[in-house]
Order: sequence, then structure tokens, then C-alpha cells
Amino acid sequence: MSVMDQTWGEIRTDLAVEAHQFLAGQRGASLPGVETQSEDKGVAQITRVVIQTPEAGQALGKQPGYYVTIESQALRGRDKDELEEVAKVIAGELQGYFRGFNFDDEATALVVGLGNWNATPDALGPKVVEKILVTRHLLQSSPPEKRGGLRPVCAVSPGVLGITGIETQEIIAAIVQRIKPAFVLAIDALASRNVDRVGSTVQIANTGINPGSGVGNRRLGLTAQSLGVPVIAVGVPTVVEAKTIIRDALEQTSRFGGPPPQGLRKEVVDQVLSPYFRDLIVTPKEIDVLIQDLSRALAGAINLALHPGVTAEEVFRYLE
Amino acid sequence: MSVMDQTWGEIRTDLAVEAHQFLAGQRGASLPGVETQSEDKGVAQITRVVIQTPEAGQALGKQPGYYVTIESQALRGRDKDELEEVAKVIAGELQGYFRGFNFDDEATALVVGLGNWNATPDALGPKVVEKILVTRHLLQSSPPEKRGGLRPVCAVSPGVLGITGIETQEIIAAIVQRIKPAFVLAIDALASRNVDRVGSTVQIANTGINPGSGVGNRRLGLTAQSLGVPVIAVGVPTVVEAKTIIRDALEQTSRFGGPPPQGLRKEVVDQVLSPYFRDLIVTPKEIDVLIQDLSRALAGAINLALHPGVTAEEVFRYLE
Amino acid sequence: MSVMDQTWGEIRTDLAVEAHQFLAGQRGASLPGVETQSEDKGVAQITRVVIQTPEAGQALGKQPGYYVTIESQALRGRDKDELEEVAKVIAGELQGYFRGFNFDDEATALVVGLGNWNATPDALGPKVVEKILVTRHLLQSSPPEKRGGLRPVCAVSPGVLGITGIETQEIIAAIVQRIKPAFVLAIDALASRNVDRVGSTVQIANTGINPGSGVGNRRLGLTAQSLGVPVIAVGVPTVVEAKTIIRDALEQTSRFGGPPPQGLRKEVVDQVLSPYFRDLIVTPKEIDVLIQDLSRALAGAINLALHPGVTAEEVFRYLE
Amino acid sequence: MSVMDQTWGEIRTDLAVEAHQFLAGQRGASLPGVETQSEDKGVAQITRVVIQTPEAGQALGKQPGYYVTIESQALRGRDKDELEEVAKVIAGELQGYFRGFNFDDEATALVVGLGNWNATPDALGPKVVEKILVTRHLLQSSPPEKRGGLRPVCAVSPGVLGITGIETQEIIAAIVQRIKPAFVLAIDALASRNVDRVGSTVQIANTGINPGSGVGNRRLGLTAQSLGVPVIAVGVPTVVEAKTIIRDALEQTSRFGGPPPQGLRKEVVDQVLSPYFRDLIVTPKEIDVLIQDLSRALAGAINLALHPGVTAEEVFRYLE
Repeated sequence: MSVMDQTWGEIRTDLAVEAHQFLAGQRGASLPGVETQSEDKGVAQITRVVIQTPEAGQALGKQPGYYVTIESQALRGRDKDELEEVAKVIAGELQGYFRGFNFDDEATALVVGLGNWNATPDALGPKVVEKILVTRHLLQSSPPEKRGGLRPVCAVSPGVLGITGIETQEIIAAIVQRIKPAFVLAIDALASRNVDRVGSTVQIANTGINPGSGVGNRRLGLTAQSLGVPVIAVGVPTVVEAKTIIRDALEQTSRFGGPPPQGLRKEVVDQVLSPYFRDLIVTPKEIDVLIQDLSRALAGAINLALHPGVTAEEVFRYLE
Repeated sequence: MSVMDQTWGEIRTDLAVEAHQFLAGQRGASLPGVETQSEDKGVAQITRVVIQTPEAGQALGKQPGYYVTIESQALRGRDKDELEEVAKVIAGELQGYFRGFNFDDEATALVVGLGNWNATPDALGPKVVEKILVTRHLLQSSPPEKRGGLRPVCAVSPGVLGITGIETQEIIAAIVQRIKPAFVLAIDALASRNVDRVGSTVQIANTGINPGSGVGNRRLGLTAQSLGVPVIAVGVPTVVEAKTIIRDALEQTSRFGGPPPQGLRKEVVDQVLSPYFRDLIVTPKEIDVLIQDLSRALAGAINLALHPGVTAEEVFRYLE
Repeated sequence: MSVMDQTWGEIRTDLAVEAHQFLAGQRGASLPGVETQSEDKGVAQITRVVIQTPEAGQALGKQPGYYVTIESQALRGRDKDELEEVAKVIAGELQGYFRGFNFDDEATALVVGLGNWNATPDALGPKVVEKILVTRHLLQSSPPEKRGGLRPVCAVSPGVLGITGIETQEIIAAIVQRIKPAFVLAIDALASRNVDRVGSTVQIANTGINPGSGVGNRRLGLTAQSLGVPVIAVGVPTVVEAKTIIRDALEQTSRFGGPPPQGLRKEVVDQVLSPYFRDLIVTPKEIDVLIQDLSRALAGAINLALHPGVTAEEVFRYLE
Repeated sequence: MSVMDQTWGEIRTDLAVEAHQFLAGQRGASLPGVETQSEDKGVAQITRVVIQTPEAGQALGKQPGYYVTIESQALRGRDKDELEEVAKVIAGELQGYFRGFNFDDEATALVVGLGNWNATPDALGPKVVEKILVTRHLLQSSPPEKRGGLRPVCAVSPGVLGITGIETQEIIAAIVQRIKPAFVLAIDALASRNVDRVGSTVQIANTGINPGSGVGNRRLGLTAQSLGVPVIAVGVPTVVEAKTIIRDALEQTSRFGGPPPQGLRKEVVDQVLSPYFRDLIVTPKEIDVLIQDLSRALAGAINLALHPGVTAEEVFRYLE
């Protein structure tokens, strides 16, 4: 989940839009095999990135596929009207994916909350799952016409390898094989390159979860190939790697006549960061509040997208 | 998970030893097809109940099988020395079950924490699972002789139907089928007949979890038949049903010349209990502390039993 | 916080309306020195009890004063429209108390969440305080006409003696002396006599918190006398003492020709309840959900009552 | 809580030892009015800094006083033997402070957990307070000779201004005035300059808590002057400000012939950090586990120091 830079080596970002901006910026032109398109929805800006070729995918460190990015400052704000507007935009994009896959309103969804509930910056997925309107068990005995616009939805947070001793992928693959949902919706906390995207950007992708992505650096992927059903991934950056902001700072100095940063990086990073901690992150001090607010916004959007018969007002009123 | 009484109808208890005491008390003699044996270990009293026939099982509302009950006031106390002694006794009984099934020290265990983590009296299983020493992922690449006395152990808390939309049994069966453990150890909070057993009694059974048992009234069973591998159940009563203590009170009055309670029960229970709450329970006011303390004692005992190479001192020192 | 019965001795209830019903029921007439009045508000029933004389107070185990009880099944339900209606009724009654004390809209309120946050049935007060709209620090530098209808409000949860080593009363008296609020609003979880009132009844009183009341059996009172400012108490029953339902069951049997329960009580209670646990309670199995829902309803009502410039819709939308 | 740099302006550190290292490094000599001394305890390194003059205090951004720093990698490790050794060293230093103030074993201590329990990196103080062995209420009626080596200890976590609407200082001053402890022990999460000190350094100071210090940037101080009794502060760095690591990175580049960073700082920081978040921090991804482990180590050390009659083994065995 990173893009390569000749000077810097790996630059960690889980966002396709950032990887493309970075490479396109370096080249001074869009990458061949990548199509991008932007749309301003007022309360949110949407960017659609289609990675069309394996070569483009490799350059961007992403699987070929369709990535939608919804960006809005309202996601970090506390204005509920604006937040509901953004949630409607996200829900609309999710429903676009459902149409793209030809899922009908009765297709069972399995919502998967990835991440470690004991590590606040990685706990977004499990926090969203807590708020999902789960209906599969209630609808099993009612015919579609009596379901009042509710889709059969089930939801699990499988935990992480260190907690269970079992790979996330193994748990989800086992459950998918057993209950045979039409698709998986996987929620994850991401790392971005840019501090400004923390908490303000939602990425949806039809490629599933790739190994190495997420705050938790998922070891194995959750994809149509590994699970046998389509996997739609929904992610929000909650952290930036500390290495990334050091890199950005050095990059800035070179604009002011500093030494070319090649070669320097390792020394500087080694001096500034501790050898003790493998994973230093940059995050807002109020990370707990951010995760809580994001999980409500995301759960609201997902509930709205999954259940055609419920309104935004209902969804947000009954969110815990 | 109840025994039938001519007068009272169903009397809820998840403990085989209580069901047998009740029926034997009524009959004035032990039940045919049931063998019991007691042992005093000083810090704990052990009762072993073998239900040998389907008839006896039906009378007791329990599957035929081997039930061990360990009873100790130290489980509710705060003396760590005594608590460690009881944990060793529980661990020894668990290892007896392992020997009975011929599991060797390399046989993979899947520990399952049953119950609803959002309902304190039902949260014992998930709380125990948090404290299990999980090793399967660490041992996968090391040969048995280099494992330092650690058994491959993995652990999950599947949640309850209302949280996930998926039956607990479906989730566990799916995971078992995938990772193929040698056996399942299922931890559950139980209901007892007798307030005095709350927090002081551990029941181990080789029959797994039966439908209707547990504080959460599990809907489907977790048994060797449904999962394909042996299921050892470990349970501790954390509640008594409110109906049970009313029944006991009325029963007592009849000793003092009260009216025969037949017929009375429904009226009295209806008067005293609310029609609103389906599930009123009797529990100590400090239920949160009780669950926390029990989960430590039980996790300590289970870690000790599962990993032949660790000592009681190590186990309790590293318990979170 | 109990009423005395010739047969049964102490009968625990923290509700004035229950104590009066009990005594009036025994006498077949209302108690001298007590005035009661009922009002049906559709979604809620209101009962107002005025205890006018010390003698009546002593008989009822309550301080002389004004007690309002609001009763509504909607408090335990999940219909948000009904819940908001009940919250408005509670807010209206609270504002009646404010008018009775002649507090104006700028009078600073100190909201106190009584109870032990580590004991779910006793945690209602701290859970309400988490959701109070705290404004004192924001308004200190703005003149009343620029406060947009917000009252200066501060809020603390002092914990319990076993957690802090300090009496609740000492902590609150110290803070009151320092910050000099116009009044204290104290929130507490109560014990009722009747299971049917658990979670469905709110009692407001102008007498403060009396020693021995609450799920936590507060040791010292929080009253105008001890704090130097008026104390309005808001409580909701979350438990019934286990002894109480046994008593009620025996009482019922005597209607069917049972033995007079005098003398019996101690034996029966000793047989049925455990000598180990001092404080066995009857409570719904889903006590955690009940406390969470009640804390939202109560915090909504209190925020609405305290801040004249906010609407019910705003209050409930921004409740966490 | 910062030291000034001609080039960089304010450099945030709450550690006296870091501020002195920084200035001494720039000057190439120790600062006048500051005495430092080091001691190697094997498992931990101790540095004692005495700031003797107001001028030295101003240069270092610290009050004149006595600061002890205990540094040990074992604090972030999971080896319980080593951890107990470090706790004994910390306890020994704390007892040195008690002797310095001439507190006898019966002098009542008020332990104060500063910080916001809803913000993981700032929650160290409240987490320590949860684990303090509180005894004041138990000892009030027993004469000193019957107290078994236990000191009267009480403990509170006052929360933060945004939660209560009351300044921390107001709450603590009120409680101190009421219960008259002999001294206050205030626990706080700190910011350091150096990532390597996060979780590995404990600072003890006889100067109390100064305005602007701590992860939460305490607004008002907790000092002998404001409270009327001595305040011993115990802090551990849990974060580094993001600005600090950018500054350090730029500082490193200038060693390699980069441009003098004067003037550059604002531009670079503005480019790299977001204008949205006021308080970006660098912290380990597993911040929750770090805070939990640190709170146990610190609570163990404090319990050991406060109660002369308990042993390290007992203290750690009974830590929750």
C-alpha cells in the first residue's frame, strides 16, 4: 500500500488518489492506464480513479479497479446537518457500487470491521460494526415483499492475529463459505500521506482489502479471489506514518536550496525517530473523539446505503 | 437447561449437580443411571456426576456425559494464594478431560467465549477470552520440540445473534471447519438455582453447550455432533432467575403449614414480577467486579491447563 | 429510604409514591400530612406527593418535601418520538422546581452524578453526567444577553467512598463552597419495591439525597443543609432488592390461606438468599442497555430543562 | 513547558532533563544555576537536576526545584521482574521526596490523576488513580499503631475543563481545603522532545504541575502556592509534538549543508502539518497498550512508596 519514489523509496499511502497525485506530480502528467474525474457536490468533493492496467496498478501500489474518494471537512466537524449531507453522498456512491455489481435489494451483505479494537487509531472498523443495523436473523423467515425495505445484513469484527491467533482472512473466508453473503463490505482505518486527509476522506474501492494496507498493516488480503464474493472496501485515514512527515519536511527544505535529500533519509529518520518503536504515527491528540465521530458518520452512511427503505433522518436518530 | 418439578414445572439450572440434587432430594434416593462422587481438595470441593443413560439425561434436562463441579468460596474472595490454589485444581480437572479425550500437548485448542459482551452478567466468556494466552500464530512455523511447552491455542468471542445477525453456532462451525482444531473449549456464564453458587462454582462438561443453556439462553448447541470435534464446556453461574427465588420462598412457606403451592405459582409470579421484563435475574450488586474477578481466575486456570510448560506463578503474573 | 411494616420490618423503596401507596394501602386511607395528586399527560402519568409534616415523613422514611413521579413505559422503549415526549414532560417538571426556587436563567447549576461507575446498576448518575451540556467555562466571560439561552452548567461524578477514600458529600460540599453554584442537581440510581417501576419511573424531589438512599446506599446526605444551596434530586429505579420480591411472594401466599408470615421472614430469606452476598438485587438481564437508554433520556430531559434556549430536537440530535 | 531556541522559538518539552540537555548542548557547557548528577542503577538510569535560580528556571521554562528522572527500557517491556525492579527504584526516589518534606508514615496523601480519560494519550493519570490502594476511609478510625504499615491515601481524577466546566485547579484546591491532606501527588502524561523517551522515562518534581504542561496543556498550575500543601508531580512522556520531529529533521539536514533553518520553519510546518488540527502528536500505534502498561508500573511504584508496610510482591500481585 505504498508508492515508490526514486529518492525516498516507499511512501506509505492507502489512498489511490494520493498515490496518483504523487506520481502524476513527479511526472508532470497523468499516468497512462489511469483515468481520474472530479465532481463537486458542495458539501463534499468526489474524485473517481480508475486504474485500468496492471502496470498502472503496480506503479501506484494498488490493484486495478475503481476507487472513489469523498472528501469533506464536515466529516471532522460537529454540524449534524452537514454530516448527514455527507453521509447521503457516501451512501449514494456505495449504492453506485451495488448497481455496478448488480446486487438487488435482497442480496445479503456481510459487513466486516477490520482492525484492533484495543488500539484506538486502528479501531474504526469494529466501532462502525457496533452501529450497523443488523437484520439477517430477523428477515430469514419473512418473504422479500414483507421486509419493509430492509436488506439482510450481518456483521462481524474478527479481531487481529495477535488477539485470536487466527488470520483475519481465515475467519472471514470461513464465515463467507458458511453463510454465503452476496458480498462483503469491509471497513478499515487507513494511513494517508497527508495529515490534512486524516478524518476528512473516505475511500471506497471494488478491489477489496490488499495485504499491507490499513493502520494495522493487514497481512493477508480480503478480495473476491480469496473470498469468492465481491469485496467492497470502505476506508478512512486516521493516521500518517511519522516517517512520512519527516520526508515531507526534508522535501520542502530542498525547495529552499537544501541538499538533495537522497542518501540523507536514513540518517535523519534514524536520528529523529526511535529505534524502539516500529510504528510511530502522527495523529490528532483527540484521536478517541475522532474515531467515535467517524464511526457514527460511516455507520450512518452504510446503514443508509444497505437498507433502501430507511431514511437518513431515521438512520441518524437511531444511531447509538 | 432445566429440571421439571411436578408442582413448579420447569426449574432453571445449568448445573448437573443441582439438577441431580433436586431430583434425588424429591425421590429421597439417587437417580438410576446417574453416578456421583465427591472429593474434598481443601480449598475446593469437587463433585463428579456421570449421567449414563438417555433416560437419566432427560430427567435432569442434561445430555448424558461427564460433569465435574468445582466449588470454592475462594473464587469470590480476593486472596490470591487461595485463588491460585483453586485455579490449579480447575486446571487439573481440565487436564483430566484432555487425557480422557487422548489429546496430546500439540493438539490445537480453539477457546470460544460465549455470551454478549454488552450485558455484564453474560459477558464472562468474552472476558475470559481476552486473557487467554494465544499462541497458534506464533507456533505455526516451529516444530513441537521447540515450542517450550506451549500448545497451539486460538480464541474467539463470536458475539450473539442480535449483534451479528449470525447464529453463534454457524460462526464457530465455520471456523472449526476452516482451522481444524483438535477440540473446542467453550466458556459460558450460567444460571443456577441457588444464589449461593453464584460466582463460587465451576462446571466442566464433555457434552458441549446445549440449546437453552447459559445466561444468554443459547439458541443452538455447540456439541461434538454439530462441530465435528469434541467440545469441553466450562461454565460459572453468574445469575439466578428471579422466578427461582420466588419458587424457593413459597416452597419454604409450605414447610410452615402454608397452602400447597400448586396452582399458586402463576398468580404469585405474575403479581411479583413485571410482565414487562422477560428476563429478570438475581445477581450481586457488584456484578461487574464479580465478572472481572471470575474471568481472571478462569483464564488463569485455562492457560495453566492448556500450556503444559507454564507455571501457575507465571500464568497469574502475566494475566492482564 | 424505607418504610416500616409491622410484619416485615423495613421495606426498601427510594420512591415516596411507593412508600405512600404501601402505607395508605395498609391503612385503607391516605396518611395525614400527605397530599397526593395525579395528572395524565398521555405519554406519561405524573403523581405529585407533598409530605407536609415531620410525622408523615418519618412514617414514610422520607424527608418532608415535594416529590414528583413521572411514569412512562416509553422510558424503557426504543421509540424516539415517544421518548422525546417523555423527556419534555420531565423537563417541564424540572423547570417547575426551578421556578419554585426562583432560579433565573443565569443561575449556575452543578450537576452531580452519584454512584459507582464500576457497578452497572449503580452507574446511572455518572452516565448521565457524561452527556450533560457543560457550559460554565464557556460562558464565564460572556454577559447573560450574549449567552444564547444557555445557562452556566458544570458537572462532576465524584465516585464512591471505596474508589476515592473520600465521602461523596465531602467532595461535593468542597466544590460547592468553591464555585458557589445556585443549586445542585443530583442524579442517582434508585431501588424500588416494585419490579414494574424499574426503568419506567423518574422521581424528582426538592429534598436532596438522603442517607441510605440509592442503589449504592449513600452513607451521607446531599441536602440544602449539608451543602448550603438547594439540592434537587433526580432518580430512576434500576433495581429491586431481592429480599423485597421474596417478601412480596410470601405476602401473596397469605392471601391464599398461608400461615401468617410473621416470624417466617428471617428463616425464608436466610434459606433462599445467600449469606455471602450482602446485596442481592433483581434487575433485567440487559441491565447495561437499560442504563445506557435511561442515561440518554434523562440527560436529554436535563439539558432541555437547564438551557432555555435549546430545543428538544437539538438536544437529542447532539446527545452522544 | 518549553525551552526557547533562537532559531526555532519554542521547543516543547515537559522534562527538565531534556530542556537542560538542549540548552547545555547549544552553549557547550552546563547552565549557571543548574546542578545535575547521574546514577546508574543497572535496570534504570537516574538523573537529578536541581534548578537553583529563577534565571536558570526561566531559561529552562521550569520552576526552580528538584527534578529526578528515572529512565529504563524495562518500562516499555513486558518482563515483570525487570518492571518490579524499576518500580522499586521509582518508589525509592519518591520516598526520598517524602523524607525531604519530612512527611511521616501517617501523613495523608491525596493522589490526583490529571488528564482526560476520553483521550488515550492523556489518560495516564486517571488510569493510575484507578489502581491506587485507597485507604483513608478504612484508617480513619484506627490508631496509627494498628494500621499495619498503611498510610491514609485518597485519590481523585478531576477530569478536564471541557468535561466538567470547572478548572482542575479549582476542584483540587476545594478538596485539599476540605480534607487537608499533608501533600498532593499529581500524576500526568507529558510531552517530550525525543521520541525515545516516550514510555521509558519517569520525571518526579517537587515543584508541582505548572501551567501549560502535560499532554493536555493544563491551563492552571497545581503548586504548593495554589493549593497550600506540597505537590509532588510524577509524569511520563506519552507523546512528542509533531512540530518537534519536523524541527529535528530540519536541524539534521543543516548538518549536511542545508540552508539555515531560520525563517524556514513556519513555511515547512505549515506545508507538512494540517491547519485543521491544532494538536498533532507522534505516538506509538499501540498507544492504548502503552498507557495500560505504564499505568500499572506507575501505580505499583506509588503504592509501594506510599505504604511502608507492603512489599513489591504484594503490590504487583494485587494490581488490577
